[in-house]
Amino acid sequence: MDKTQEILAIASKRGLFFPTAELYGGKAGFYTYGHLGKLLKNNFEQLWRDYFLNLDDNFYEIQSNNILPEKVFIASGHVKNFNEIMRECKKCHSRFKADDVKSKCMKCGGELTEGRTFNMMFKVPIGFAGETGYLSPETAQGAYISFKNEFQATRNKLPLGLAIIDKAYRNEISPRQKFFRLREFTQAELQIFFDPANLDEIDDELWNSIKSYKLIVKRNEKKKEEEISLDEINKKMKIGKFYLHYAAKVQQFYLDVLKIPKEKFRLREIGEKERAFYNKIHFDIEINLETFGGFNEIGGIHYRTDHDLKGHENISKESQEIFHNNKRFIPHVLELSFGIDRNIWALLDLFYDNEKKKNETYVFRFPSQLAPFQIAILPLVNKDGIDNLAAKVHNELKKNFHSTYDDSGSIGRRYARNDEIGTPFCITIDGESRKDNSATIRDRDTTEQFRVKISELKDTISKVFKGESLIKFGKKVDTRKM
Amino acid sequence: MDKTQEILAIASKRGLFFPTAELYGGKAGFYTYGHLGKLLKNNFEQLWRDYFLNLDDNFYEIQSNNILPEKVFIASGHVKNFNEIMRECKKCHSRFKADDVKSKCMKCGGELTEGRTFNMMFKVPIGFAGETGYLSPETAQGAYISFKNEFQATRNKLPLGLAIIDKAYRNEISPRQKFFRLREFTQAELQIFFDPANLDEIDDELWNSIKSYKLIVKRNEKKKEEEISLDEINKKMKIGKFYLHYAAKVQQFYLDVLKIPKEKFRLREIGEKERAFYNKIHFDIEINLETFGGFNEIGGIHYRTDHDLKGHENISKESQEIFHNNKRFIPHVLELSFGIDRNIWALLDLFYDNEKKKNETYVFRFPSQLAPFQIAILPLVNKDGIDNLAAKVHNELKKNFHSTYDDSGSIGRRYARNDEIGTPFCITIDGESRKDNSATIRDRDTTEQFRVKISELKDTISKVFKGESLIKFGKKVDTRKM
Repeated sequence: MDKTQEILAIASKRGLFFPTAELYGGKAGFYTYGHLGKLLKNNFEQLWRDYFLNLDDNFYEIQSNNILPEKVFIASGHVKNFNEIMRECKKCHSRFKADDVKSKCMKCGGELTEGRTFNMMFKVPIGFAGETGYLSPETAQGAYISFKNEFQATRNKLPLGLAIIDKAYRNEISPRQKFFRLREFTQAELQIFFDPANLDEIDDELWNSIKSYKLIVKRNEKKKEEEISLDEINKKMKIGKFYLHYAAKVQQFYLDVLKIPKEKFRLREIGEKERAFYNKIHFDIEINLETFGGFNEIGGIHYRTDHDLKGHENISKESQEIFHNNKRFIPHVLELSFGIDRNIWALLDLFYDNEKKKNETYVFRFPSQLAPFQIAILPLVNKDGIDNLAAKVHNELKKNFHSTYDDSGSIGRRYARNDEIGTPFCITIDGESRKDNSATIRDRDTTEQFRVKISELKDTISKVFKGESLIKFGKKVDTRKM
Repeated sequence: MDKTQEILAIASKRGLFFPTAELYGGKAGFYTYGHLGKLLKNNFEQLWRDYFLNLDDNFYEIQSNNILPEKVFIASGHVKNFNEIMRECKKCHSRFKADDVKSKCMKCGGELTEGRTFNMMFKVPIGFAGETGYLSPETAQGAYISFKNEFQATRNKLPLGLAIIDKAYRNEISPRQKFFRLREFTQAELQIFFDPANLDEIDDELWNSIKSYKLIVKRNEKKKEEEISLDEINKKMKIGKFYLHYAAKVQQFYLDVLKIPKEKFRLREIGEKERAFYNKIHFDIEINLETFGGFNEIGGIHYRTDHDLKGHENISKESQEIFHNNKRFIPHVLELSFGIDRNIWALLDLFYDNEKKKNETYVFRFPSQLAPFQIAILPLVNKDGIDNLAAKVHNELKKNFHSTYDDSGSIGRRYARNDEIGTPFCITIDGESRKDNSATIRDRDTTEQFRVKISELKDTISKVFKGESLIKFGKKVDTRKM
C-alpha cells in the first residue's frame, strides 16, 4: 500500500472518515467524518476561529443559508460562468472534466465526445411552485448579501470582517481526488470589507512590526519558491500593505499555530490568465503533500475588489454604497478562503509517521491542540480499586481536556492504539498510584515516561501543551527496569 | 408592537438574525444569523455538546452529508411518507398546508382547491446524469447509515451514541412561523443505539440515584402537566428505565444548565394517533412561549425501535445485525432531537425583559454561558492613557471570555447598549484605574457596581460565572455619589 491507501484504510478503520452511505455503495465526492475525524475537524475550526477572528475586534462570524435564491448567483456570475466542460467516452461512457483528459478515454482508451458545458451548481427548486435556488458553491456570497445588515449592526466601521464556516457544494463531474474534489465540503472563509483607498495604507507601527517578515512565495514567472520580506514584495510587486499584512498572518497560522514544517508551505501567485477575472491579486495557499506528489492548493488569498457588491447592487437595485470617513463608496473585499477538508487531509499527510518498517505500527504526530484526544487514561489493571481511581482521574480531567478512557488489552497495546490516533499523552494509573497518589505520563513522541502527582496532572498537562518540558514536572521512569 | 415584533426588530437591528437575501426581498423560511446570533448559537451548541456527549464515554459526534442518495430515504420511509397536503386559493393563489386551513382562503376568503400531495424533501440531482439525491430532512439518517462503521471503529460497545449537529431541510409550503417553520434549519440530534433487552434494565446504582427525580409531564389523556417521579412513571406508564433516565437528563439540561424557569418547561406525551408509526414512545420537549401564546415543541425524545436500521437492511441488503454480549440482534434507537433555531427563539422569548414602560430600554437576561458577549470593556474617556489601559485589559481578558470593547458614547449609553445585547458584566476603566490598578464591574441584572483589582478580574469573573456573589470580590461603589 502507498501512503494514500494506508491513510484511507486507517481513516475508515479508526473512525476518522469513510465514504457516506457505504452500505448503498457510496457516491463519489461524499464523505462522513467519524468520531475521531469530527474531533479533529472541530479542533481545526476552533483554532481557525480563535486565530482569524482575533486579528481585529471588528471581525465576526455569521451564518447564512446553503440554499440561496437564483438572483444571488446571477449577480455573482456563477449562473453564467461557474461551468466545467465535460467529455464522455463513446465506448465505456466514463465522464471526465475536459481539463483532465487529452483525446482518449483515461479508462479504456476509447474516443471522447466533444466537450459539453455543465454548470457545477446544484439546483434546488423551492416551494410548491419550484422557484429556482442553488446550493451555494462558496460561503462568500452569504457574507456579501449580509454586508449592509451587518455593517449597520456593528456600527458602521471599516475594515469589517465577516467569516462563515459552512458547507459548500459543487456538482463535480469526476470527483476522484478524495478530499481534494468533494461534491459537499466545508469552507472557512473570511471576507474583509475595506476602504480601497487604504490598500497600501496601514498603521505605521503595525507595518514596521511586520515589514521584515519573510513570506515564502512562488512568483508566477519563477520556477521555485523564495523567501521575500513584505517590504520587498510591496516595492517589487506593487502588492498593497493591507493585503501583505494578511498574507503574513495566514503564513503564521500555518507555521506557528498548526506547526507545519516551513519547507512544506508556500504562497503561489496566480497570474492574470489563470485567476478569476474579478481577482485582482490572488495567491493560493499550498502545502507540499507526499500523497499528491507535490504542492497542492488548500486555500487562497483573494483581492476580489468590489466585484461582488457591485454585482449585487446591479441585480438587486439596492445600493451597496456606504458612508464612511466622510466619503461614499462601495467597499472592496479581501477574501481569506480555506478548504477545511483539504486542510484535514493535509494534516493527516503531514503528521502521519509510518514506522512499519521497524515494528508494524504507525503514529499520527498531531500537535496537542489538534489531536482528537489530548490524553488517554489507562488503568494498569481492572481491579483493586485501580479502575475506580482511573475513572475518577478521567472524569476530572475531561472537564479540561479531550480525554479517552481505555481499559482493554495489554498496556503496550493500549499505548500503540493511542499512538495510532495521535494522542499526545497516555496517563497510566497503577498499584502505586493508590499509595502515593501519582501516575505515569507517557510522551507519544519520545515514548519517555514520567511520574507525576495526580493532583498536579491538570497543571502539568496544561503547561506541557504550552511548550514546557515534562522533565520539569515529573521524575523520569527508567522503563528498562519495567 | 407586540413582543414578537419587538424581538424581530431588535434581532435585525443588532445582528442577532435577519431574513436571508433581504436585498432581493428575501424568501420565506430562510434566516441568516448575524454576529451576535451566531455567538449565541455557538454557545448553545457547545453547551449541548458538553452536556449530552458527556452522559456516556461511548457517545460521540460525527458529521454526515446534507445531500444523501435516494435509497437512504426510500429505506427511512421519507420518499413515501414525508408529505404534506397543499390547498391553493382559486382567487388569490395563496398556498396553505391543509392542516392550517378550513374551507376558505385565510387571506382573501376565496374558495380553495382540493388537497394535493407534496413531498417536503428538496430533491437534488447529482452529477451530469442527474441521479436523484435529497437534502436530508433530519440529521438522524446520517447517523443510521454510519452505525456499522462507527460501531466497529469504537470497538463494538453498546450503548453507542452518535450525535450530529447539522443543517436539515424541509420544503415547507407556507413557512410563516418565523423560527418555528424554517426551510433550512439546524438540528442537534443524538441517536443512542442500545440492546432492546435493556430497555428496563439500567445500572441499579444509577436508577436509585434518579428514581425519585420528578419529571414535568403532560400525559396524553390529561389536560395539565404534573410532576411525577421516574419510579412512578415507570410503574404506571410502563416506560422503561433506559428511556426515563434520558428524559430526566433532558429536563435537567433545560432547568439546570440553561436555567429555564421550571414553570416554562414540560414533556408532552404524544399519543399513538399523533406520533409517527415508528415511534413507540414519544414525548415532545415543550417550552411555554409568550410569543406563541403557550407551550410549543422545541425538541423530542423518540424511541424509534429498530425501524430505521431494519429499513436500511431491507433496502441495502447489508445486514445491520451486530454481535454483542453473545447475542446477534439489530440494536434499537432512542433519539434525543433538538431544533436549534427553535431553542434560540425560545431563549430570546424567555430572557427578553421589556422595561420600556419605565425607561424605554430593554434587557436580555441571558445566563453568562449563553450571552453573546460575556463582558464589555469600557474606557471612561478616550485619552490620558485610559484607552490604552482598557485595550490592554480587553486583549488580556478576551483570551478567556467573549469580550467586546466599546468606547463610543456616554458611559450610560454604553451600559444600556450592553444590557440590550445581554452582556452580564461591563468593566469600566477610569482615571483612578491608572493610579490604583482597579476597575469597576457593573452587574447587568442588579446594576450594582463593584471596585476590583485589574489583576484579579479574570479570577473574579470566572468565579462569579460559576455562581459566586460579586460582593465577595470587590468593594461596592455607591453610585448615588457619582
